[in-house]
Amino acid sequence: MDLTLTPIGVVKNTIKEPGRHEQQAVVSEIIVHEDLKEALDRIEEFSHIVVIYWMHKITPSRRLTLKVHPMGKQDLSLVGIFSSRSPARPNPIGIITVKLLEHRDNVLKVTGLDAVDGTPVLDIKPYIPGYDSPTKAETPSWITKQR
Amino acid sequence: MDLTLTPIGVVKNTIKEPGRHEQQAVVSEIIVHEDLKEALDRIEEFSHIVVIYWMHKITPSRRLTLKVHPMGKQDLSLVGIFSSRSPARPNPIGIITVKLLEHRDNVLKVTGLDAVDGTPVLDIKPYIPGYDSPTKAETPSWITKQR
Repeated sequence: MDLTLTPIGVVKNTIKEPGRHEQQAVVSEIIVHEDLKEALDRIEEFSHIVVIYWMHKITPSRRLTLKVHPMGKQDLSLVGIFSSRSPARPNPIGIITVKLLEHRDNVLKVTGLDAVDGTPVLDIKPYIPGYDSPTKAETPSWITKQR
Repeated sequence: MDLTLTPIGVVKNTIKEPGRHEQQAVVSEIIVHEDLKEALDRIEEFSHIVVIYWMHKITPSRRLTLKVHPMGKQDLSLVGIFSSRSPARPNPIGIITVKLLEHRDNVLKVTGLDAVDGTPVLDIKPYIPGYDSPTKAETPSWITKQR
C-alpha cells in the first residue's frame, strides 16, 4: 500500500524555529495550491479549522524516539511518545485547531498555528464541536499542572 | 522532500464498510506494532485519545474531489472538500477523538472509532482539552442542523 502524502499548501509566518512560541499572537497564512482553491469554498463559515501538517524539521533519527519527558521537563517522568504531543514521532504529523480570521482566494489567515514558516500542509478540516471535543475528558495531573 | 508514512498499527473491529455506523457502540482494538509498544506507556492516564489513520478505501480518483454535498445530502449546496469531513480528500487522513477503555500491552481498546477493520493507524496522540478544543467555536447552520 502506497502511503505517500502530497502537500496541499504551505505555511507562511514569522516563526523560524520549532519550540514554544506565543503562537496565539502570531498570524500565519496558509497558502493553498492554486489548483485546490475551490476546495476551500465556504470555509469562512467556520470560526475554527483543524490544520494537519508535516513537521519537516524532524530528522529521521528523531522519528525513532519511543519515550520523552512531558513538555521537555526533565523532572517529569518519561512517558511514551503516543502519550505525548512531542513532535518526535514515527509519523511527524502535526494537528492543531486554529482560529480562522480570513479566507481570500487561495489564502487562509489564522492565529494559533504552531508550525514554522515553510511547513508543508497536508489537510484542512472544519472544526466541529462534539465531533472533535468530547464533553468529559480527563487528563493526568502532569498535564493539568503544566497548562 | 519524502513524505512517506509508515503505519504504526492497525484497526481491528466489526466495521467492514465505510459509512455511517453506530460507532459509539462499536468497540475497536488498535493493535500497535510490537516494537512500538513502549511508545504507549502511561496512555491509560488519558480518558480520550486522538487517532490518526489512513483511509485506505479511498481510491486515487476520489482523492481529486474538490467539492461535496455536506454529509452526502444532495439537498444541501456544495461546499469545498476542506470545509467538509468527507473522506474523499487529497490526503485521506482521518482524525477522530475516541474514548480509551483499556490499554493492555500493545493493544488499545476504544469506542467511537469510525475506521473500518484493517485501517492502517498513523499516529496516536493524547486528547488535551484546551489544546484540541477552542472554547467558542462557531459552525454554519448546515452543520448544526445535521447534528
